Amino acid sequence: MKIILLSGGSGQRLWPLSNGTQAKQFLRLLKSPEGEKESMVQRVVRQIKEAGLLESITVATSMSQADMIANQLGEYGVDIVTEPARRDTFPAIALASAYLQKEKHCRPDEIVVVMPCDPYTETGYFHTIAKMVKAVESNAADLVLMGITPTSPSSKFGYIVPQAGDASAEVQPVNRFVEKPERALAEQLLAEGALWNGGVFAFRLGYITQILEKYVNAPSFTEVRARYQEFPKISFDYEVAERASSVAVVSFTGQWKDLGTWNALTEELPSQTIGNVVLDEQAVNTHVVNELDLPLICVGTRDLVIATSNDGILVADKDHSEDLKKHLAKLGTDSRPMYEERRWGEYKVIDHIEFADGQKVLTKRLCIRAGKNISYQVHHHREEVWTIINGTGQLVLNGEQRNVKPGDVIHIRREQFHAIRAITDLYIIEVQSGDRLTEDDITRYPYTWE
Amino acid sequence: MKIILLSGGSGQRLWPLSNGTQAKQFLRLLKSPEGEKESMVQRVVRQIKEAGLLESITVATSMSQADMIANQLGEYGVDIVTEPARRDTFPAIALASAYLQKEKHCRPDEIVVVMPCDPYTETGYFHTIAKMVKAVESNAADLVLMGITPTSPSSKFGYIVPQAGDASAEVQPVNRFVEKPERALAEQLLAEGALWNGGVFAFRLGYITQILEKYVNAPSFTEVRARYQEFPKISFDYEVAERASSVAVVSFTGQWKDLGTWNALTEELPSQTIGNVVLDEQAVNTHVVNELDLPLICVGTRDLVIATSNDGILVADKDHSEDLKKHLAKLGTDSRPMYEERRWGEYKVIDHIEFADGQKVLTKRLCIRAGKNISYQVHHHREEVWTIINGTGQLVLNGEQRNVKPGDVIHIRREQFHAIRAITDLYIIEVQSGDRLTEDDITRYPYTWE
Repeated sequence: MKIILLSGGSGQRLWPLSNGTQAKQFLRLLKSPEGEKESMVQRVVRQIKEAGLLESITVATSMSQADMIANQLGEYGVDIVTEPARRDTFPAIALASAYLQKEKHCRPDEIVVVMPCDPYTETGYFHTIAKMVKAVESNAADLVLMGITPTSPSSKFGYIVPQAGDASAEVQPVNRFVEKPERALAEQLLAEGALWNGGVFAFRLGYITQILEKYVNAPSFTEVRARYQEFPKISFDYEVAERASSVAVVSFTGQWKDLGTWNALTEELPSQTIGNVVLDEQAVNTHVVNELDLPLICVGTRDLVIATSNDGILVADKDHSEDLKKHLAKLGTDSRPMYEERRWGEYKVIDHIEFADGQKVLTKRLCIRAGKNISYQVHHHREEVWTIINGTGQLVLNGEQRNVKPGDVIHIRREQFHAIRAITDLYIIEVQSGDRLTEDDITRYPYTWE
Repeated sequence: MKIILLSGGSGQRLWPLSNGTQAKQFLRLLKSPEGEKESMVQRVVRQIKEAGLLESITVATSMSQADMIANQLGEYGVDIVTEPARRDTFPAIALASAYLQKEKHCRPDEIVVVMPCDPYTETGYFHTIAKMVKAVESNAADLVLMGITPTSPSSKFGYIVPQAGDASAEVQPVNRFVEKPERALAEQLLAEGALWNGGVFAFRLGYITQILEKYVNAPSFTEVRARYQEFPKISFDYEVAERASSVAVVSFTGQWKDLGTWNALTEELPSQTIGNVVLDEQAVNTHVVNELDLPLICVGTRDLVIATSNDGILVADKDHSEDLKKHLAKLGTDSRPMYEERRWGEYKVIDHIEFADGQKVLTKRLCIRAGKNISYQVHHHREEVWTIINGTGQLVLNGEQRNVKPGDVIHIRREQFHAIRAITDLYIIEVQSGDRLTEDDITRYPYTWE
């Protein structure tokens, strides 16, 4: 059995903690049973493992999230398939399926489970997945979905309507799908025994590869990926589930939440405050997540969520926290990430300034993890000054390799080839200056470390 | 006529904007009539000037505030007298008086007005000071005080009780002083025509020098200052006013406020938000001062004051903002200023980190104003890496002087002599590393710029 975990979204609704690369599923705000900080995606994979389902996970994601996935799920040895561009869930699942078929050489009768990476659920959810796998194994249907037992006639979800018959059967054939019905219709559907569509699908690999070959029939995964834009921009529900002739549903009753808004997230936080916070005893129903390296004092507040990061500060009444999105537009589109986890470690922007003469200066603190390296590269629009502040490493500057230690200062001018590898965790203060300071001003070259 | 302006206080009550060196009177949160940002001390001196009283101002202050005073009041050509240690208002006024007598060679009959630097008042206040000066000139009394017409029987103030007689007289002899009475007594005092003590005093210089000579009788100002600890720790009210045989009061009726708490300050702010703030239309009675270089979004909040600086973040219900002080103690005493105005310009701490091996690293952005310089100095516990990011200047390193420009990197090791002077405004990223990073790890030497 193979799992395809879908990781997408840019999550503005949890600003300032989430942003373009730091989507909500990567925020380490939850707590593992061992008391460690845990993100939503780490929680889901831990739960998959605890349910005994951890055989092989392929994460289907965007290129911008690949480094974050590698950092957060590295210990589980997951495979990562990146979409060349964002399309929709059908192309993403098709690409990951092509990877399983053509790179991992899985057989057509291999069972595949597709699931989202961010529902906040409990053990029963994963037992339901196991039942779905069994249903596919026993050929109950070509496609088996998870149906969540509704708690209200919500208009926010898609509904799966089972065929009339034995509602207590573990596997029920599906009659039809209804996407986000009005409340009155939703109430009718509940009376019919309809379930919310949880976005979890089980099928045999051959079932999906035969559909994707209608769009892209290529001998290798690389070629399928290169022709990614030939897949239609359509959801898996519309392209596959609603057209399937043999489709069944297995129901799950229990906790199933999207922690995608501040109001929902604060209900599941392990404590009222995270980070350097003094919350006085007069404060009522106030949650504070302070990711800044500054003390935050909160006195006598009520019904607030306060969140800070290097991207900004939010102070919101909990009842109004959903209004956040419309205000983010006012911040302008030129905002850049102030913190990023990368495959080699992480960086934080600690200062940025633009002078009247057009000169821009950006100062970062980088941490390159032991054994990792920054690729051999050249910048065309900026120079960089690196001050090594802790740890040891190997520097390559214009082809010459040497060791570096704290106190060493390296001046990298425009067009100079450079790379650095950490021997121990390596901390650097980097001062960038130039007329254009963007992450994409970089040309990478191969380098073989001695 | 000479003015002695008292500038003291460390002002925790306006944290995080105020701190040890950035006392409340230096916060540039008000607006001048020309629409420029203005601090409380700048406002008072502007008002003194507008009232035609700007002949000569001597600011009596602590050493830690001297640079700030020089920066903020430099254009007015004020003299600064610094106390070698904090004592109380009598020693501070005595020292400034000794300065007027022995350094400025003022005559004993020169009239001196002592006033605090932070009351938020109107024009009438300064007209009252002019009347006080006239009263001393006409020898109505040795000491003339300003009495503020009370608006309530407050227990927070000292009261001046005039002698029974013509309450409408411009100058009334004083019967007695009552310090912070209980409310019932305060009500009685109001019935007697008592006034609040505004802390403004007028007298002839000789009157006060004759009192101070009882404690320190020395030929030069330098020697008076060197013997500063021989003055008793006592307020001017207790040492001088309450013992004076000939004391009168001139009353002032009008706006007179201490903007020393967030609640009081926000009432006088020129706008609901200062800095990079998005305040949504659902927010009610919310004031935000954001001095951080980060966007702050405020959604649906009520009755809040939010203030941010490099020292920290405050989110407080306005009714509870006075509880701030007790929480500050929890932040610990090892906090250092994260932003300071100095005689040569200003700096901001942009990052600080301590490693497991005891190595500390502090990164600052400095701006040295054109024509100013950092003194020739040596550090014993830290090395510094300077990256010049904008402007031009002259560097001295171990006695050798050379010009510097953007892109230049200077590595200053422990025990190396160094100084830098700005030709144009000079911006530097400074990375300090060492086992002890404190402002006092500095030995200064004389240097004559070529």
